[in-house]
Amino acid sequence: MSFHAARISKLLAWMEETDIDVSVVTSPANVRYLSGFYSNPHERFMGVIIPRKGTPFLIVPALDREKAEAEGTLPVHTHSDTDNAVDILVGVLDSDAAAISQVAIEKSQMSVARLEELQSRFSNAKYANVEDRLTAMRMRKDGEELSLMRQAAQLADEAVAFAVTQMVPGKMEYELVQAIESFVKRQGADRMAFETMVLAGEKSALPHGEPGTREIRKGDFVLVDLGIVWKGYCSDITRTFAVGDISEKQREIYEAVRRANAAAIQAVKPGVGAGVIDRAARDVIEDAGFGEFFIHRVGHGLGIDIHEPPSMHGNNEQPLVPGMMFTIEPGVYIPGMGGVRIEDDVLVTETGVEVLTSYPKELRILPVHVLNVE
Amino acid sequence: MSFHAARISKLLAWMEETDIDVSVVTSPANVRYLSGFYSNPHERFMGVIIPRKGTPFLIVPALDREKAEAEGTLPVHTHSDTDNAVDILVGVLDSDAAAISQVAIEKSQMSVARLEELQSRFSNAKYANVEDRLTAMRMRKDGEELSLMRQAAQLADEAVAFAVTQMVPGKMEYELVQAIESFVKRQGADRMAFETMVLAGEKSALPHGEPGTREIRKGDFVLVDLGIVWKGYCSDITRTFAVGDISEKQREIYEAVRRANAAAIQAVKPGVGAGVIDRAARDVIEDAGFGEFFIHRVGHGLGIDIHEPPSMHGNNEQPLVPGMMFTIEPGVYIPGMGGVRIEDDVLVTETGVEVLTSYPKELRILPVHVLNVE
Repeated sequence: MSFHAARISKLLAWMEETDIDVSVVTSPANVRYLSGFYSNPHERFMGVIIPRKGTPFLIVPALDREKAEAEGTLPVHTHSDTDNAVDILVGVLDSDAAAISQVAIEKSQMSVARLEELQSRFSNAKYANVEDRLTAMRMRKDGEELSLMRQAAQLADEAVAFAVTQMVPGKMEYELVQAIESFVKRQGADRMAFETMVLAGEKSALPHGEPGTREIRKGDFVLVDLGIVWKGYCSDITRTFAVGDISEKQREIYEAVRRANAAAIQAVKPGVGAGVIDRAARDVIEDAGFGEFFIHRVGHGLGIDIHEPPSMHGNNEQPLVPGMMFTIEPGVYIPGMGGVRIEDDVLVTETGVEVLTSYPKELRILPVHVLNVE
Repeated sequence: MSFHAARISKLLAWMEETDIDVSVVTSPANVRYLSGFYSNPHERFMGVIIPRKGTPFLIVPALDREKAEAEGTLPVHTHSDTDNAVDILVGVLDSDAAAISQVAIEKSQMSVARLEELQSRFSNAKYANVEDRLTAMRMRKDGEELSLMRQAAQLADEAVAFAVTQMVPGKMEYELVQAIESFVKRQGADRMAFETMVLAGEKSALPHGEPGTREIRKGDFVLVDLGIVWKGYCSDITRTFAVGDISEKQREIYEAVRRANAAAIQAVKPGVGAGVIDRAARDVIEDAGFGEFFIHRVGHGLGIDIHEPPSMHGNNEQPLVPGMMFTIEPGVYIPGMGGVRIEDDVLVTETGVEVLTSYPKELRILPVHVLNVE
């Protein structure tokens, strides 16, 4: 049985238990998880439809037919821009829509408008949430997923190593972004997992800053945050470098973040609550006196989506289990001055933790006088 | 009054008429439209909250505070990853949540899960859709919007012109993508409106293909589809080029698409139904014998979003009005052989049409023997 078929069969077992007649799975990530086919259909309808009795199928916009048939492991039905996709869905199901008593949807993914459309066809149905089940399945990565994520992480390491070779005074943030993305593409990645972030100097204090024409200068922190999608699975890494001399205060910040990253990794093992990992990092940063500048959770789950459960925030007491994969990325951001973030991807193992990203984390001071050598 | 304040005041007039107590506007595009602040908060909560009585405000993730205060025109409230954002929203509103009788949301944007959260606080409220009103407002571009969109379109023209200088045999699709995106970034654009598409040869037949390592070769069509975001507003252009000799059949296809593009533009004027524009293009392509290969609508509205109303498909009888902005992009895709798409951005004027994109559309055959000259 292919791993997609195995996943669908797990979902069907749950549908039997909970009396779901049909699951309508429409998020690109879950469509990928269940069918192997990935697309971002924008506002168009795309879904994996799983009837409890009958054949699961993909429904995609007509212009994705070729790709869906090539990549997907399910029969493909299409709709054009003048069709009503939900009508086509109901037609393929070939059962009495009014007799459907329970439909499972992704409540945090499906829009209120789409739900109202389904309600107008499946007019006697209740609507259950299929997300918890899919999330639980996706949270424990299977062997194939682990293999792909190790490769994605390794390429992230290589991309950081490459970025360092390009990081010379005078280079602009966006030029580094382009060099990195070009490198990654040459290695055969699907795409970047998000817009690569290179932020220099005071801009490194903006956790969501946009790389622009700011040039790298002596005394800067340069923060590099990048993610790679490798055959559908994400990696996510951040390293922060210093250019030439930096101040004693900057060193203190760097070391606090580095120790926070290490403390959080040290805390990972099965049975521990997710919030414990956040607090392990936060305690170190608070003790160093920078608590007010660590303004986000310590990390997020990782997989097909760049952000997926578990959320690694302080109030999440969900226990870690083997197969979970998430980021550990403490940061300290001093407005107007600069910021440091150090991010790794970690896997919960039977006995503890495996860190997938391995680029060194000791403070690295880049020389200002050496010319760029590729 | 700033143009953001003018928009909020239009929305308030509608809220008065329809007895809406509070509007909760959460899509990044509408947040931008009403506040000037743009961010993609991923799964985090972000919104412009407009009470019928009281002060409108922005609610954003804590890590976006600095940017929201700099770009936004409304008071900013924040939530951290450990807060419940909806509780904070209810607290800032400072009115009795149970007394709220009608809340307006964006039904095609808000998730079913978020609605259920609101329902648990505003437990006596009905939920109206604010989208039609915002869509109607956004569909008629105001002066400031037109000015930004003209600039976005001009830069799109320039990017295509630049792309042509890079288009030589042996160059890979993704290298062209990078060169184009680098050029656009240097001109000061916010970002690309979508992943730039350069597809060569048989890959040009995939309307959603991904640029990769396919090299440009003699006899190829090379399709370039790119969009630029300029101070928040999008442009979208496609041109298709021929490399060296192409076949008679390829010429026929190109000319059919070019005539379809011209016929559709010719048909644009106030009062005409949107579907008429699609059919004007489709008739030309059907007459040329390629009807079955034109597998998508002729275009889509354009503005803050790269896809927004009006949808330019054959069944949309919505009449065009001055201020509407949309793409006209007929295409013919022959599987295994190649495709042609020619796309312009057009504005409905009081008397007819203004075409914002102006890169030439005559078949351009690129030489195979000339070296790349930047």
